[in-house]
Amino acid sequence: MSFDRLQDKIDEMRNPSVCGLDPSLGHIPPDIVRKHIVARGETLASAADAYFDFNAGLIDALYDIVPAVKLQSAFYEALGPCGAVALKNTADYASGRGMYVILDAKRGDIGSTAEAYSEGYLGTFKIGATEFEPYNFDAMTVNAYLGSDGLVPFMETAKRRDKAIFVLAKTSNPSSGELQDIDIGGGRRVYTAVGDMACALSAGDTGRRGFERAGIVAGATYPGELAALRERLPHTFFLVPGYGAQGGGAQDAAAAFARGGAGAIVNSSRAIICAWKNTGAGGADYAEAARAEALRMREALRRAVY
Amino acid sequence: MSFDRLQDKIDEMRNPSVCGLDPSLGHIPPDIVRKHIVARGETLASAADAYFDFNAGLIDALYDIVPAVKLQSAFYEALGPCGAVALKNTADYASGRGMYVILDAKRGDIGSTAEAYSEGYLGTFKIGATEFEPYNFDAMTVNAYLGSDGLVPFMETAKRRDKAIFVLAKTSNPSSGELQDIDIGGGRRVYTAVGDMACALSAGDTGRRGFERAGIVAGATYPGELAALRERLPHTFFLVPGYGAQGGGAQDAAAAFARGGAGAIVNSSRAIICAWKNTGAGGADYAEAARAEALRMREALRRAVY
Repeated sequence: MSFDRLQDKIDEMRNPSVCGLDPSLGHIPPDIVRKHIVARGETLASAADAYFDFNAGLIDALYDIVPAVKLQSAFYEALGPCGAVALKNTADYASGRGMYVILDAKRGDIGSTAEAYSEGYLGTFKIGATEFEPYNFDAMTVNAYLGSDGLVPFMETAKRRDKAIFVLAKTSNPSSGELQDIDIGGGRRVYTAVGDMACALSAGDTGRRGFERAGIVAGATYPGELAALRERLPHTFFLVPGYGAQGGGAQDAAAAFARGGAGAIVNSSRAIICAWKNTGAGGADYAEAARAEALRMREALRRAVY
Repeated sequence: MSFDRLQDKIDEMRNPSVCGLDPSLGHIPPDIVRKHIVARGETLASAADAYFDFNAGLIDALYDIVPAVKLQSAFYEALGPCGAVALKNTADYASGRGMYVILDAKRGDIGSTAEAYSEGYLGTFKIGATEFEPYNFDAMTVNAYLGSDGLVPFMETAKRRDKAIFVLAKTSNPSSGELQDIDIGGGRRVYTAVGDMACALSAGDTGRRGFERAGIVAGATYPGELAALRERLPHTFFLVPGYGAQGGGAQDAAAAFARGGAGAIVNSSRAIICAWKNTGAGGADYAEAARAEALRMREALRRAVY
């Protein structure tokens, strides 16, 4: 099962962290951006080339110590169709290096539309007698606002292809409480209802390591809610944003882990990919700086979790 | 203001409807699919070419009687990067024909991520001294599950570029009530809270025709909720899915309109784009069949609304 592969990789590296590959021109060393502008001009294509170049360097620097990457789809979509190419190439490169690759797309739609999203990112597309994997992510994030018939098609594709999903429950941002924290009676809140929905959808679909196919997203910036969700959902895999630049620490994130320190993965994006901005080398050392920061995060999580 | 342009176009054509361009190989006449397979093989690229070809024919058949098209992003994303090209080409073609072009992407994210989505689909991307419009939609649908800081960046881009957004309030699918109908006290439900949020975000940003920059999505399949939302939000523009194939009729959709029959647009996808399946001509007449169906829908809406 998809989360078995992820948990095995985490255990092997003793590192429950995922690096967010969220590129923007401001995050990439200027020399890399310039090189691609020289090659293809000031175009969206050269920006996309710079994104992939930057990402590949990060993946090379991290793949033996970090089990997973998470690609935030928005930053790629912001480049138009060229960005979709960079998204796919980055995902394929990371998979080729053995990493578990998560698409952070927060998609949420219904029926045949949800099916199209899930087949595109986790599944296949068939034309004539030929079947393609348009993208080939291991897991993706989804939004449950449309209710369970927005999630079922993702679950079906995930099951068929041995992939997984993470349903947004309690997000890490300041205004996440506006809808998610609404008290719905019986000691439950909207985010609890979403967590329960993920759990119900997974019924009977549990891997060797004890986790269900539908995970949830729950932010390190709300450790109380994180702990409450963990207590309620002992067999759910947690994807935890909000660590580092957003203010959550290792102790906060530790609340997401199940007994024995399994069942969660903590994301950091900017702190790792922009670590080069703190070394004074102008970006020439971006890969080394990212690795050093990833090792610091690993140590902090090891102390807090294991 | 963006919704002024849309309302003017609706009035000019006396037709408050939008055609959903939601292609899939099963919706496209077999001869069109075959033509592109002959040209480029059984590839995702030929599927994308077939999508664009089909869409362009529909746009040519509809642009003088239907004011707007809505592109469901999922069906394009299902083709991988080739699909992004078909999405962009379809949007540009419809814009070139003078149509108001809505992206149905239901994006929802925060901070710089929401900004990246909004700049990609409604705004611009700058590299060096050159600024691009990666896509150039007139409006897009967004998901409010992350709260207002997930919506503010979309609103800022929309304001800067004179675009608009539609926030998902009450969707048309069977399970939409699971989260959206939750009673939050004071006579409000989650979908009411989202409607209020859209309204609050638009404060002071109202066009000549009296509608605010943040519209909402509310389905024709729930006419009671639609009417309640309309009463509560007299200055909000409504995008109404669920007509036709999903079961909502013109009378149901009529509840979405403000006084004087303005402020709403009703979507139909399959009933129009697959109308050729009912004529027995095997798809050779798909454009004419779509036009005939769009005219039937126009008449039904005229009778119910004006």
